[in-house]
Amino acid sequence: MTPADDARFMRAAIALSLRGLGRTTPNPNVGCIIVRDGEIVGRGWTQPGGRPHAEARALAQAEGLTEGATAYVTLEPCFHLSPRGPRCVELLHRADLARVVVAVADPDPRTQGQSIAWLRDHGIAVETGLMAEQARAAMAPFFARQTWGRPAVTLKLGLSLDGCIAMADGTSQWITGPAARAHAHGERARHDAILVGRGTWWADAPRLDVRLPGLEDRSPRRLLLGHGDAPEGWTLIGDPAHIADLDGVASLLVEGGAQTAAAFLAADLVDRLLLYRAPIVIGGGRGAVGDIGLAGLAAAHGRWRLADRRMLGEDMMEIYLRRRDG
Amino acid sequence: MTPADDARFMRAAIALSLRGLGRTTPNPNVGCIIVRDGEIVGRGWTQPGGRPHAEARALAQAEGLTEGATAYVTLEPCFHLSPRGPRCVELLHRADLARVVVAVADPDPRTQGQSIAWLRDHGIAVETGLMAEQARAAMAPFFARQTWGRPAVTLKLGLSLDGCIAMADGTSQWITGPAARAHAHGERARHDAILVGRGTWWADAPRLDVRLPGLEDRSPRRLLLGHGDAPEGWTLIGDPAHIADLDGVASLLVEGGAQTAAAFLAADLVDRLLLYRAPIVIGGGRGAVGDIGLAGLAAAHGRWRLADRRMLGEDMMEIYLRRRDG
Repeated sequence: MTPADDARFMRAAIALSLRGLGRTTPNPNVGCIIVRDGEIVGRGWTQPGGRPHAEARALAQAEGLTEGATAYVTLEPCFHLSPRGPRCVELLHRADLARVVVAVADPDPRTQGQSIAWLRDHGIAVETGLMAEQARAAMAPFFARQTWGRPAVTLKLGLSLDGCIAMADGTSQWITGPAARAHAHGERARHDAILVGRGTWWADAPRLDVRLPGLEDRSPRRLLLGHGDAPEGWTLIGDPAHIADLDGVASLLVEGGAQTAAAFLAADLVDRLLLYRAPIVIGGGRGAVGDIGLAGLAAAHGRWRLADRRMLGEDMMEIYLRRRDG
Repeated sequence: MTPADDARFMRAAIALSLRGLGRTTPNPNVGCIIVRDGEIVGRGWTQPGGRPHAEARALAQAEGLTEGATAYVTLEPCFHLSPRGPRCVELLHRADLARVVVAVADPDPRTQGQSIAWLRDHGIAVETGLMAEQARAAMAPFFARQTWGRPAVTLKLGLSLDGCIAMADGTSQWITGPAARAHAHGERARHDAILVGRGTWWADAPRLDVRLPGLEDRSPRRLLLGHGDAPEGWTLIGDPAHIADLDGVASLLVEGGAQTAAAFLAADLVDRLLLYRAPIVIGGGRGAVGDIGLAGLAAAHGRWRLADRRMLGEDMMEIYLRRRDG
């Protein structure tokens, strides 16, 4: 297997891991591929609810073909015992694999490198770190919870070219086109919770559900940033920092409006900016983001990097990730 | 010569035409390539001040090698007699060319298809319309003057991701990085005039010169949108529509601020949006464009199309062109 082969298979494993995104919390959404003689013999990803794990699925598919094979896993296999199934590290060993390629070690203290050592002790070649950054990005909710003790936060903005999210009178239907709106619904389906501010709630009474055929049951938990009584079906949080306390929420999509966006940005709680930009000029409309207490322009630089962009119909989607050390 | 060859050579001629952009007004910035036996034997573009013409330069370079050759010209060769040199249609005929490929016919009533007919009458094969749209875009100033009787207008905006051109206190140095700013100076050098509003003039006292080594002498004419007395070295215009009356100005770069941008957009006088977007969030800053009197969001759609985009250091440059019928 050449390094290019390894990268190709790991890329495929990462793509598989995304199938579980938003459905596995608090478990990580792992992807796994088993390769023998250059051919994929098993594919798996963490199933809804967190079990079975990706490795168990891939090994089951590859049954009888795993001897001497290589497993590509986006996260170090689990080491800890669970009543819900055998631990993956043993499954991989029992399968007589020759080699396991791991993108990134599991930060969960119950594993944290122990599986890698254990596999090596049992005669399996293990490599780590291949496409670690991409794998970590694909499992961002799990890593945010493990590393920062809070959900990974995406801030979504639908903008005109001049940076408005609505006309001066509040009209915002529609800035972006159907393809961008459908994509945004797909993003909802991949998040554990969605949040809006009081202003947006009063103005739009948003349903915040997933309106894509076949994905209606994927509508995430709805949160409102504000004080007072929570409307039925909504959870109220008084401060962005309180997202850390939300049980079962490892990913949060912040959908509006400008003051809510500013509250999360000012608290440096936004990890991912999801922009949908329509090729229109509004002029004198409502700005996308309220005051974030920026001390000066120099302080604004160096915080974001463009990670992806794509045309969706007439609109451009862009994803910027917060640069964070380590 | 295959159609792919033709397209390749015309593309090269269009690229050459851009070398004259901003230096040939009121003449068009034409590009010309002479090809014999699949090889380029002459290249020319309209020289500063408008003469010699592109064809004359390309033919002079190809001297002795033009018999049976093909000329690719971005604009129909001139038909009218001038005291400043022989007309191109005759130069091409004298050179014994076999074929002339013209991107777009000359809208100047003194030519307007007459050269194409004349060349055919004289036994030269003429094809027209190849890459006409691209050629017209490359000679936008000339076509704006001929078609609409006014300069082609570019509106430049330097923006944060949230669409701000400055912080709330007016600070705007710097939003974009050095590569984007150098590119913007190059754009200045390719325009006949630059315009700012009173507010920008008072706040920034901008020099609006070209600060690129070797291009300092390319600083265009400076215009101020407003009323009262014009500062020394500036021309005052009271209304965007008055740009039509500016002698020797076929291209105008509008540089700021939000009210000036709005005045030109409201008058539908912007043909090209030039956006430099920095990967920063300002929050609660100054919006890019003031009120343009938009009746509703539906009216905002269908007006702009993305024509180009490019990374300039950390910033993204985007060019949107106004869709206009015909």
